[in-house]
Amino acid sequence: MRRFVVVGQRASASPDFLLVDIPGTSGRLDVLLRCVRAALLVSHGLRRDTIVYLVLLGGPRAPRSIRIDGAAARYLRPDERSLATTIQKALAIDGRGGPSTLVRPGITVFEGGLDAVLDDLGDATPCVLEQGAEDLREVTIDLRNTVFFVGDHLGFDEPTRARLAALGPATVGLGPVSLQADDAIVLVQNELDRRDASAQTAG
Amino acid sequence: MRRFVVVGQRASASPDFLLVDIPGTSGRLDVLLRCVRAALLVSHGLRRDTIVYLVLLGGPRAPRSIRIDGAAARYLRPDERSLATTIQKALAIDGRGGPSTLVRPGITVFEGGLDAVLDDLGDATPCVLEQGAEDLREVTIDLRNTVFFVGDHLGFDEPTRARLAALGPATVGLGPVSLQADDAIVLVQNELDRRDASAQTAG
Repeated sequence: MRRFVVVGQRASASPDFLLVDIPGTSGRLDVLLRCVRAALLVSHGLRRDTIVYLVLLGGPRAPRSIRIDGAAARYLRPDERSLATTIQKALAIDGRGGPSTLVRPGITVFEGGLDAVLDDLGDATPCVLEQGAEDLREVTIDLRNTVFFVGDHLGFDEPTRARLAALGPATVGLGPVSLQADDAIVLVQNELDRRDASAQTAG
Repeated sequence: MRRFVVVGQRASASPDFLLVDIPGTSGRLDVLLRCVRAALLVSHGLRRDTIVYLVLLGGPRAPRSIRIDGAAARYLRPDERSLATTIQKALAIDGRGGPSTLVRPGITVFEGGLDAVLDDLGDATPCVLEQGAEDLREVTIDLRNTVFFVGDHLGFDEPTRARLAALGPATVGLGPVSLQADDAIVLVQNELDRRDASAQTAG
């Protein structure tokens, strides 16, 4: 199972944003939507082996988080507006159903932020994508039991950074240029694809 | 200079599409918009060394093409709606100004399809991204003088395929999984980033 956690410092945890101006009204939820596409969608299909968590730290209902599980999700389309509509509908639930609510197949809303996500993740190896760290192509950790933490366009806020540091994470770098969050996920998925294919050939 | 040509089999060459339903009304121009982002935008900046061509083969005004030059472009934002607005405004010019029109800094509309783009490209080495071809990470061609041709969600149409084959292009593969077009561009850009950095270190 491949897992990505994207932390949106100001991304809206409430559905009160406008589809005609997602960047300007949602705390840059658009950055996170592009991460969902990058993690889950391939040519004509969904990655059934991937789960994405969005940690939403912005707006009146924060913190909340959303888990999108490729094994169960249906009808995910790659364009930002479609993905925004899906997330907006999920965020519209009232949250009185308890700490987490399955809002439709594969999509769960958590009434909590990074801690709720860490509880849900269990004992996966944490890994933070970080400019200048050991190169993804060379790292020898077992990437397949790893959960990757990705910052948004602002990077990680200080409490998130401290919480992640306390986990003693591995760090992985992606090359010489600082990339947008979704591109970082694309590169990780490609490396995992390659390692899985090699493992199958070897096995 | 890094160059990418994305061919949209049905992508609208006219501005008559709806921003509230880009996938459904523009012949999947959204696929091409994501390619623009992937090619040109990095964390907090534009890739000044990259040019993207969109070949628009759909709708009443086809074929037309758009060139977006990272060295001159300004105010490009990563979200699909902003990019769609930019392209829609460019396509609204009447085309009576000749075979190509600079519509704003860095953005040129050509009143022609792949042939117009090939004329503009001059003598760069053509390279087609193709599942199963020699791996991008291993190829020994000089990727820096190469122009990469990328199909949309439908792949290349037959006339485009024949026209590209006549160029005797190199072919490059990206790994074991068939990816969306923008992800393919992300992987190429990362490889080019790495090779440029190695060349600088070696030099």
